[in-house]
Amino acid sequence: MADKPFQDYYPDEFAHCYGCGRLNQDGLKIKSYWDGEESVCHYTPKSCYTGGVPGFAYGGIIASLIDCHGAATASAAKLKEEGVALGEKPLPRFVAASLKVDYLKPTPLGVTLELRGRIIEIKGRKVTVSVTLSAEGVLCAKGEEMLVQIKDK
Amino acid sequence: MADKPFQDYYPDEFAHCYGCGRLNQDGLKIKSYWDGEESVCHYTPKSCYTGGVPGFAYGGIIASLIDCHGAATASAAKLKEEGVALGEKPLPRFVAASLKVDYLKPTPLGVTLELRGRIIEIKGRKVTVSVTLSAEGVLCAKGEEMLVQIKDK
Repeated sequence: MADKPFQDYYPDEFAHCYGCGRLNQDGLKIKSYWDGEESVCHYTPKSCYTGGVPGFAYGGIIASLIDCHGAATASAAKLKEEGVALGEKPLPRFVAASLKVDYLKPTPLGVTLELRGRIIEIKGRKVTVSVTLSAEGVLCAKGEEMLVQIKDK
Repeated sequence: MADKPFQDYYPDEFAHCYGCGRLNQDGLKIKSYWDGEESVCHYTPKSCYTGGVPGFAYGGIIASLIDCHGAATASAAKLKEEGVALGEKPLPRFVAASLKVDYLKPTPLGVTLELRGRIIEIKGRKVTVSVTLSAEGVLCAKGEEMLVQIKDK
């Protein structure tokens, strides 16, 4: 089951996010996977997500991709910490408490962007993740996100 | 001319942003104005911009609104610092160098959100702005953005 993305394991009730919800027909539907110790997501934003100058991504789409890939990475890492394989039970859902993005270079549109996540810390229900965003091998932005696990009802 | 939003004064070449570009037909087209020393923007996101749980905004749209309102605030403040009134010349264009968002409470959809910007510092081509995002009087998120003015060609 490891060939399915993290987001496919969110319970339906948590799968409506514009950035990563498989049930949001208008959204970005990003997909994240493990690649060794890192998580990876490849995504090509549509041209409408331009910044002020056509051809380069606007800050909000970059923050959105980092936010959602970071959240999925936190979820999958929490499951792994519990010794549970992906697919054995629904993925726990995390929400962002804080997100910091550094915009290092203009991010081109029209190419596939690569996001890579790495766990900085898991502390109970709090997980901190770092995420890089690269275009054709060039680091364009990096983020750090602190997330909190939603409690079961 | 003070009744027109900041974004109407961006030169056409810089008016394509998904978040704030008046020339982006698919985008959010947010509008920012002065309200005394603060800048203000009222915006009601469509329901598709939900987070994992329907009815609440996803982190990315919150970051997007803060990013674009912050950028417009930086532009208008820079103009004001130069002693130039809105509309007397095109607005200088700023891009984000860093953005930090703290998500304090879930942000409801279906209501008008209020963003308020305040200048922290103007230092040459660098401007730092703080932005709050409230829903029905409740502070839901706050951001701090550092922006850099694009050089004239």
